[in-house]
Amino acid sequence: MDKIIREINERLQTILDQYPDGTVKEAMYYSLKAGGKRIRPLLLLQVIRSYGLDYHPYIDVACSLEMIHTYSLIHDDLPGMDNDDLRRGLPTCHKKYNEAIAILAGDGLLNEAVNIIINCHLESHLTLSLISCLYSSSGIAGMIYGQELDIQNEGKELDVTTLQKIHRYKTGKLIACALKMGSLIASEKDVDIWEDIGYTIGLAFQIQDDVLDVTSTTEQLGKPVGSDESNHKSTYVTLLGIEKCQELVNQLFKEAIEKIYSLRINHGLLLEIVEKLKERVS
Amino acid sequence: MDKIIREINERLQTILDQYPDGTVKEAMYYSLKAGGKRIRPLLLLQVIRSYGLDYHPYIDVACSLEMIHTYSLIHDDLPGMDNDDLRRGLPTCHKKYNEAIAILAGDGLLNEAVNIIINCHLESHLTLSLISCLYSSSGIAGMIYGQELDIQNEGKELDVTTLQKIHRYKTGKLIACALKMGSLIASEKDVDIWEDIGYTIGLAFQIQDDVLDVTSTTEQLGKPVGSDESNHKSTYVTLLGIEKCQELVNQLFKEAIEKIYSLRINHGLLLEIVEKLKERVS
Repeated sequence: MDKIIREINERLQTILDQYPDGTVKEAMYYSLKAGGKRIRPLLLLQVIRSYGLDYHPYIDVACSLEMIHTYSLIHDDLPGMDNDDLRRGLPTCHKKYNEAIAILAGDGLLNEAVNIIINCHLESHLTLSLISCLYSSSGIAGMIYGQELDIQNEGKELDVTTLQKIHRYKTGKLIACALKMGSLIASEKDVDIWEDIGYTIGLAFQIQDDVLDVTSTTEQLGKPVGSDESNHKSTYVTLLGIEKCQELVNQLFKEAIEKIYSLRINHGLLLEIVEKLKERVS
Repeated sequence: MDKIIREINERLQTILDQYPDGTVKEAMYYSLKAGGKRIRPLLLLQVIRSYGLDYHPYIDVACSLEMIHTYSLIHDDLPGMDNDDLRRGLPTCHKKYNEAIAILAGDGLLNEAVNIIINCHLESHLTLSLISCLYSSSGIAGMIYGQELDIQNEGKELDVTTLQKIHRYKTGKLIACALKMGSLIASEKDVDIWEDIGYTIGLAFQIQDDVLDVTSTTEQLGKPVGSDESNHKSTYVTLLGIEKCQELVNQLFKEAIEKIYSLRINHGLLLEIVEKLKERVS
């Protein structure tokens, strides 16, 4: 997988190279290369590989997902939103540059992701399905809606159902989208089961995040640990306790693996990435 | 044209109605309906009509342009950008709601415009050309680049060439895009000349804006007049004087009209909108 991550990183650089030089482009690249684990593009490309297809024609499609993910982080970190100074151990985009540049860099990534998919020159019907999948998952019935739910519920005591709803939109949608896009490319008939697997992994991922906020170190996490508690934020850990959370994470990953085994694919490629997610410390 | 404007406004409402309720959706609609003149969607639809085609199947495409235009206004007005309190005589989006909601409302409009075009279910090749035209014009080699140039040159004494470059990207790109999109639908071979007409109208429009900032009233303009001068901003008026500017505006509109007459279309429909632009007081 490291080879694929290198290829994704190289393409992200090449994609940005084609645009006119400027601080916005620099800021887009700064945030893109700031240590992301490339989970979404990896999920997309591993699905394609698991059906025995060559993933190379689709690396740019995978990059478009990372661009959408990165735009959402840049805008989430803004002073008018979460007002975060650190992300993955580095100054956030508006801290490194300024607020105006960070707003524009986020806009630029959200805007250009669609152009990147179009420029892959895949078959028109597939291109439109991919764009529609990506921009429905990220839009106001998707990730943006999750962000809104999160803001609305700030400072409130939440129950597990509400928390789950917030994260289904805020995190789940884009992770499910990664697997769905892979399936649209490799095997359209399996899209629904991949979406289901995506939500399962997304939920496990979010509960892990809440656990890591308590159990990890600031160095490992690249941002202050314990920030949820100091913000009096309802999380899976505050609602269920660490032990129950860890059980839940294991159970969800187990479910995801079972669903993966139900498909006629090369399972190993997906299990590799699920294992990597299970073991993560940041 | 008033009937078409009504149809555009009705469609904008219907488009938003399909999304889950929430403050972000409300804020998107607030800014969309806040008195815009609908110049870009009108230009697009009048081009289609001028070739004798029915414009009705393309109203949503026209709406997508207005969504992109409105997103750019919402983000431009943010405290981290121009920090404006009034727009078209009403509180700006972040003043009416808050900064987080305004960021998300802008993101939502930029995000959903592409979904709106896809949902028109036009022929795939045309759909992709329209999306590509729109998102290249608005992206980091288009409108966003213009925004960056504007920020970079803030507080500097500019010459006419630099000012023209800024506005070619910041305003010209999207106005040219409106005419190009109309031409992609009605007559692909004429796209280049429509683009050229678009830049001519866009430049006239911008010089007019600078003139109106000096000659109009706060009531007519819906925002404080004289703001350019009090911000020590280089404008066409500060560089060339009002009289020369007014000459230039007339000359540019005359050029645009001559170019329109060079095409084998129903000229009256375009002349009507150019006349309307020429006479505008806000």
